[in-house]
Amino acid sequence: MRIVVDAFGTDRRPIPDVEGTLLASRIIPGNLILVGNQNRISAELNKYDPLPSNIEIVDASDEITMSDKPSVVGKSKPNSSIHIGLKLVRDGKADAFVSMGNTGAVHAIAMLFSLGRIRNVKRPALSVIFKLGGQPIIFLDIGANADCKPDWLQQFAIMGDIYARKAVGIQHPRIALLSNGEEEGKGNELVRETAALLRQTNLNFIGNAEPKELFKGKADVVVCDGFAGNILIKTFEATGSYLSRLIREEIRRQPLTLLGGALVRPAMNRVRRRVDPFEVGGAPLLGVRGVVIIGHGGSNAIAVRNAILQAEKAVSGQIVTAIEERINQQQSIEHST
Amino acid sequence: MRIVVDAFGTDRRPIPDVEGTLLASRIIPGNLILVGNQNRISAELNKYDPLPSNIEIVDASDEITMSDKPSVVGKSKPNSSIHIGLKLVRDGKADAFVSMGNTGAVHAIAMLFSLGRIRNVKRPALSVIFKLGGQPIIFLDIGANADCKPDWLQQFAIMGDIYARKAVGIQHPRIALLSNGEEEGKGNELVRETAALLRQTNLNFIGNAEPKELFKGKADVVVCDGFAGNILIKTFEATGSYLSRLIREEIRRQPLTLLGGALVRPAMNRVRRRVDPFEVGGAPLLGVRGVVIIGHGGSNAIAVRNAILQAEKAVSGQIVTAIEERINQQQSIEHST
Repeated sequence: MRIVVDAFGTDRRPIPDVEGTLLASRIIPGNLILVGNQNRISAELNKYDPLPSNIEIVDASDEITMSDKPSVVGKSKPNSSIHIGLKLVRDGKADAFVSMGNTGAVHAIAMLFSLGRIRNVKRPALSVIFKLGGQPIIFLDIGANADCKPDWLQQFAIMGDIYARKAVGIQHPRIALLSNGEEEGKGNELVRETAALLRQTNLNFIGNAEPKELFKGKADVVVCDGFAGNILIKTFEATGSYLSRLIREEIRRQPLTLLGGALVRPAMNRVRRRVDPFEVGGAPLLGVRGVVIIGHGGSNAIAVRNAILQAEKAVSGQIVTAIEERINQQQSIEHST
Repeated sequence: MRIVVDAFGTDRRPIPDVEGTLLASRIIPGNLILVGNQNRISAELNKYDPLPSNIEIVDASDEITMSDKPSVVGKSKPNSSIHIGLKLVRDGKADAFVSMGNTGAVHAIAMLFSLGRIRNVKRPALSVIFKLGGQPIIFLDIGANADCKPDWLQQFAIMGDIYARKAVGIQHPRIALLSNGEEEGKGNELVRETAALLRQTNLNFIGNAEPKELFKGKADVVVCDGFAGNILIKTFEATGSYLSRLIREEIRRQPLTLLGGALVRPAMNRVRRRVDPFEVGGAPLLGVRGVVIIGHGGSNAIAVRNAILQAEKAVSGQIVTAIEERINQQQSIEHST
């Protein structure tokens, strides 16, 4: 197995990217390819001794940043680490691509300049995996498609189901539709029409789920359009940051609460780890012809390592072949009825 | 001024409803009408001495609960406190209706059995007012309309602007559209088309806002469709409950953190008050022909009192007339161009 890692993904590129790759190289049964500015990667790698023999470097002269527009960089920076990394996968020289970089750019370059879609997949979906209450939950789409159609969401459910089973190890994933109410008939038009389509599949579709149900671990895969999914994820993150800021402010206000704050710090750190998105490291862009794992720009080395481990599981689980087969099977069921 | 209060709204009806009305009666320059089962209201009121002279009771024999279906109770429970309270407003016998009860039922009964829409308002919108970082932010729609059209959202913005100015006291409300990205051109089709419409109004439209910007106080009025708005509000609430549960669990795990937890309690209580939705008490259903304020079923007496104070400001600000004038003005601008 060969996994390509974007060395210029994180906000503190290439430091956590290279260190995370090194950490993964000690666990992964296969080779890792760091792609990006060769000199800077070498300089970073040389800090480590001995160098693992299963890491190689591929040079990429262009650098895509978080502020680059996805619609522009596809053409303007053809030698970016994202372009070159994804082409290695397209050309069969690697099995997966992992990046903590510009999500929109990875999506656009994968679709338009390298991998393209799996046959009969209508739209790829961007996912995120959260550990809520200890168990992983896969959300998709969280931003690749702001406007969706019911048959796209049906495919997102199928792809999420396959990923949950083959790469996350959930035996019978419970699939839910994100909605503004639990009851059948609740939701917007998209949710109601998608629910009807999902009932026609052999998925373990458990119906609608409101945000609070998700925190209780009601579902393993949560399907939504990329607009609502993005609002959910960003509200979750923003609420967390907002509340920690308020807690810090209020604790600092009095000597006694300040002392209490010092004493509860270990508990607060455990809370932070329990909601830490970096524990999973990254989540797949599903529906493209290759394994692509995308993580957060703020990732540390552990998160990069974990994203690489996600990629390894997705490759071992042969998710691309599984998605292709399952989508085509669903198509033929629908055409025969 | 006469404000009708649903005595059978909260989950612990009629206790907080009656007590909150009593608290408001000492502040409000006008009369309060408690509507609901007369005997139970009297029994509750008799606990207080002396009884304020500006509270009266109107009997309602049907009781609508949180689990009642809005589509059913409109016809099946014609003598509910919601029906009777709203009819008092419709018939000019009261100026506003306040309820902590079943939101869907208040919306349905207001629209179909009593007040109806303000002329030329396409759809009423349900709002919520949060105090984030001390300043109030009005969100709408948070659930009355799961599927929206751009011209409905334009009207939501106009109604939110009027409410912010006339009932919340914000001089030049900054209006934002909830979106998955700040940049112009981001968002789903609805957001992009609504943005174009909002640029044609004289509103202080500041563009798209992501959830994290809202927590930083970027906008005063945030407009969205009822599906996305509902997901945002419920994710905010669910994240808050989830994090407090985790914090409690982790603090209990060790004697030292348990001690620290006792010391930080005053700080945590201050945090809770800073995010407390009950401080505002309730928010308007905008676009119906009357002032209707709806609060949370979990409200305590203070929240009920504050919701009544909201109603008083909305009546004093003559928001119904202001909305009617402004919507018709916008219509004639559009017809003349």
